[in-house]
Amino acid sequence: MKNTTLCYIEKDGCYLLLHRIKKENDLNRDKWIGIGGKFEENESPEDCLRREVFEETGLTLTDWRYCGIVTFLSDRWEGEYMHLFHAAGFTGTLRDCDEGMLEWIPKERFAELPQWEGDKLFLRMMEERAPFFSLKLRYEGDRLVETSLNGK
Amino acid sequence: MKNTTLCYIEKDGCYLLLHRIKKENDLNRDKWIGIGGKFEENESPEDCLRREVFEETGLTLTDWRYCGIVTFLSDRWEGEYMHLFHAAGFTGTLRDCDEGMLEWIPKERFAELPQWEGDKLFLRMMEERAPFFSLKLRYEGDRLVETSLNGK
Repeated sequence: MKNTTLCYIEKDGCYLLLHRIKKENDLNRDKWIGIGGKFEENESPEDCLRREVFEETGLTLTDWRYCGIVTFLSDRWEGEYMHLFHAAGFTGTLRDCDEGMLEWIPKERFAELPQWEGDKLFLRMMEERAPFFSLKLRYEGDRLVETSLNGK
Repeated sequence: MKNTTLCYIEKDGCYLLLHRIKKENDLNRDKWIGIGGKFEENESPEDCLRREVFEETGLTLTDWRYCGIVTFLSDRWEGEYMHLFHAAGFTGTLRDCDEGMLEWIPKERFAELPQWEGDKLFLRMMEERAPFFSLKLRYEGDRLVETSLNGK
């Protein structure tokens, strides 16, 4: 099980999303997701957050909220603890990303794009500014087969 | 870096603490700490919390609060992401623990017992019911040399 960050950067009613079409063996292949990646040794969640956002977008975060942890389990991919952040402040200029195409997508359009089924659950809680949550999601292939919130 | 849980179970103004005196090569040797241990494969933070509390105390948690994550870094020990919980509800009967002596200690006495310096920081935030926090603590030996709260 690896630790990762996943950040949804918001501006003018849009999220900055990555359309993952560049890497061959990518568990997120063809899906639209937020910005993030694996923790490196000795990084805190926020260290990883800032580094990944900068590496993938060129932006420097100035304001963020730690929304929750998603325990992602799958019969096909390595499990992950996804540390979920929402960011509303940043400086810098957007640049190209190795891992996919970056695009600002209106929040209401996002729901129609290909994404993990469980992402809608945590995106809604993020949107509603729910208190910090721990969400366990278990997939068989692309199908969400188990959901547990805060251990219940 | 491993993921672990650390739980402070409270009853009548006391915390259930473990005096770590039984294991030889124990990073917590002789210190007083809460209940917890390493995540197993596919466990959510709450799965690990409940299993470790049951294994170490015989108690079954019925009510808990996820307080924060502590990024513990040390020049002597493997780093840890410590998922910190406070628990106020449980059922069952206390039993002996392989890893140390279990004791209910009045909260005000706890501060005088041997513990990691940084523990006082997160115990205070837990006590004050601060919103979910991310605390990075770096030690050289027993000395706390760096502290960062929520990435600041």
